Amino acid sequence: MNLRRDANLIAKAALRAVDPEEALLRHVRVIDGVLFAGKTRYRLDALRTIYVVGAGKACAPMARAIEKLLGKRIGESCVIVKDGHPLRLKRIKLREASHPVPDQRGVDAAARIAEIAAKAGAGDLVICLMSGGGSALMPLPVEGFTLAEKQSITQQMLKAGANIHEMNAVRKHLSRIKGGQLARLAAPAKVLSLILSDVIGDDLSTIGSGPTAPDPTTLGTVDEIFERFGLTLPRAMPRVETPKPGDPLFKRVQNLIVGSNALSIDAAAAKARELGYKPLVLSTTIEGETRDVARMHVAIAREVQRARRPVAPPACLLSGGETTVALKGDGLGGRNQEFALAAAIDLRETHGIFALSIGTDGTDGPTDAAGGCADEKTVARAEAKGHNARKDLASNDSYHFLEAAGDLLKTGPTRTNVMDVRIVLVTAS
Amino acid sequence: MNLRRDANLIAKAALRAVDPEEALLRHVRVIDGVLFAGKTRYRLDALRTIYVVGAGKACAPMARAIEKLLGKRIGESCVIVKDGHPLRLKRIKLREASHPVPDQRGVDAAARIAEIAAKAGAGDLVICLMSGGGSALMPLPVEGFTLAEKQSITQQMLKAGANIHEMNAVRKHLSRIKGGQLARLAAPAKVLSLILSDVIGDDLSTIGSGPTAPDPTTLGTVDEIFERFGLTLPRAMPRVETPKPGDPLFKRVQNLIVGSNALSIDAAAAKARELGYKPLVLSTTIEGETRDVARMHVAIAREVQRARRPVAPPACLLSGGETTVALKGDGLGGRNQEFALAAAIDLRETHGIFALSIGTDGTDGPTDAAGGCADEKTVARAEAKGHNARKDLASNDSYHFLEAAGDLLKTGPTRTNVMDVRIVLVTAS
Repeated sequence: MNLRRDANLIAKAALRAVDPEEALLRHVRVIDGVLFAGKTRYRLDALRTIYVVGAGKACAPMARAIEKLLGKRIGESCVIVKDGHPLRLKRIKLREASHPVPDQRGVDAAARIAEIAAKAGAGDLVICLMSGGGSALMPLPVEGFTLAEKQSITQQMLKAGANIHEMNAVRKHLSRIKGGQLARLAAPAKVLSLILSDVIGDDLSTIGSGPTAPDPTTLGTVDEIFERFGLTLPRAMPRVETPKPGDPLFKRVQNLIVGSNALSIDAAAAKARELGYKPLVLSTTIEGETRDVARMHVAIAREVQRARRPVAPPACLLSGGETTVALKGDGLGGRNQEFALAAAIDLRETHGIFALSIGTDGTDGPTDAAGGCADEKTVARAEAKGHNARKDLASNDSYHFLEAAGDLLKTGPTRTNVMDVRIVLVTAS
Repeated sequence: MNLRRDANLIAKAALRAVDPEEALLRHVRVIDGVLFAGKTRYRLDALRTIYVVGAGKACAPMARAIEKLLGKRIGESCVIVKDGHPLRLKRIKLREASHPVPDQRGVDAAARIAEIAAKAGAGDLVICLMSGGGSALMPLPVEGFTLAEKQSITQQMLKAGANIHEMNAVRKHLSRIKGGQLARLAAPAKVLSLILSDVIGDDLSTIGSGPTAPDPTTLGTVDEIFERFGLTLPRAMPRVETPKPGDPLFKRVQNLIVGSNALSIDAAAAKARELGYKPLVLSTTIEGETRDVARMHVAIAREVQRARRPVAPPACLLSGGETTVALKGDGLGGRNQEFALAAAIDLRETHGIFALSIGTDGTDGPTDAAGGCADEKTVARAEAKGHNARKDLASNDSYHFLEAAGDLLKTGPTRTNVMDVRIVLVTAS
């Protein structure tokens, strides 16, 4: 078995499964005048107008897929993408805005989306495209608040140590569009949200702050958070509640995940099986410090060799999610490259194990690499060129280490993002 | 299912399997005048004298097991245990020495062991008992070197950043007993080493520096290491090579592991199955930073609930090995308690998952606890008593946190040590 070649084929399958355009076309089809999406069928001749809105870094290719499916049926539209991420489209209007720091262009475009949603009525369908970055690209502060004021509140919260759930609860209630409010604006039209998830666990109310998903948090939650962190608002917040789980308005709404880390991992598992490896998915929600996550992957791979468990070789261990790197040095790298470097140290002179880690967006940290890989000779190859594995790990310099070893992975930007995919192939030693 | 009760039963089964006396008696039996050990049978009436030597923290109960098996057949003996760890025995002579810093009593006792081994001849059997701490308890410097000189060399190496393999290579060649030399001293007698392993991977040449195991390192290895680290010796080292793999002297030697992390985990898996959980052993060689290892365990448990993989619920995830804690605060705790605290944070309000981590020696860090456990309410229970989970984790204060939550595990010292056992029970949420 050629582990390096096979790991690369598996990684390619993982990426292909979450290509935004292909992923959308795999989940949504038009056959004989009927739009099939998830468990719902929409008869096109029974629909009055089809509006298209949305926001996110991967939304341009998603919009292109919708054009391919619906062509002239598309009515008014506004889809917000990150600066430099547009595509040439025939019908759907793309607008660019700033990411990760929102700007006025984002506010204007979000207002246009709210306008379109409000215009939609009974018999209409609003298709909403959502992908990573959608929250920052589609900022629409509540009446009386400016974008700057909203940002200053989230900055205060970050400083005070609020977690992502607390941030989102407040953000949703300071927005006119998030936390299910876009779905409420669109009612009584039907809503079909097509979602490329970039969050751990694929919680619909978290992805892009859930503009078409019920919001489990309340104004009471927000009051508690303000009190806990001693936050002050420049003026009174409108007491407008977001729509809650169970609200009948969601009967007309379908949120459909067309791409996610789990779907990418599933495709990797299928490819591994095709190549003769028994796939074992450890988890698609892995967080934590990268180097320790890498060591644990190698320890499991060793158990496969030593004791034929948790799965017998030849095996393909898979995991997804997004780890972190506590920067200690000023080296160049990203979390996927650091995974490969840490794994390489533990794999030194271990025959029959090959590890690969890749960011599905094709951009790992501030580098031109998408990730890296490691085998028994990675350390030897790099050290023959004057590198020292432990020193390079200590200074977070995984890029130069893997470059010397010939173990960088480069794909170029993929225009998708469903976090990271890790692949560890194991044969009997 | 009562997860807490079941996890405790599984932990008990894991500990029982590596009780030194029981573990030895499970692997060694005397039936009709024949000593059965591993793949070898020793006819007692064909043996001239049976000598018993050894060193390690768990060797007193191991020696008691040998007394039960062989009684009056035992000839001269010397088994070295840590200060405060002796038992009242009838025949086998126990000696106490200092651990972890060796002392002259250890040198004297080791010299006695060498004397006994040298006395053993054709037709004799030398039983050697080895367990954790054996290396420090049985120091016997090569001719012309003092214990202090040997220690100063290992101190220099530690400072220079040598790893455990480099340390062991040098130590073995500065010893008269380690690296297979005890087996050479005992030749032409037969040697039966009964080993309780406390090292990751159970490498025989590593446990107690492998006094009866072939040594893959050579004087050449040592010269290289001295050169690499710029070490100087107070005087020339004797050019005596340790016995190598393939040396015919090892034909008369059997090294038998009677207790290990893997055996403990196997027993836990069997108990879990008996209680209705599908066991999945992730690895018995897990190292790395404890809190990140904990997060990864929880992420895998969540995958079991969410996607019925890598195993369907009700499941018991098991792992062994020994993690580390990079101390950042001045709190009280140990690695197993820190595992429980870190898991508790991720398990907050997650129904149907119970995590437990225990040091098999019954002493986790400088505390009277053996480990800790965590469920969905652990954080709530501790925070109701004024604790803050994240702050306590930041200051490594897992003991007081778990104490408040009622989630400390206490067993008292177990007189065994095969590192740690982690148990994560998962039911459908």
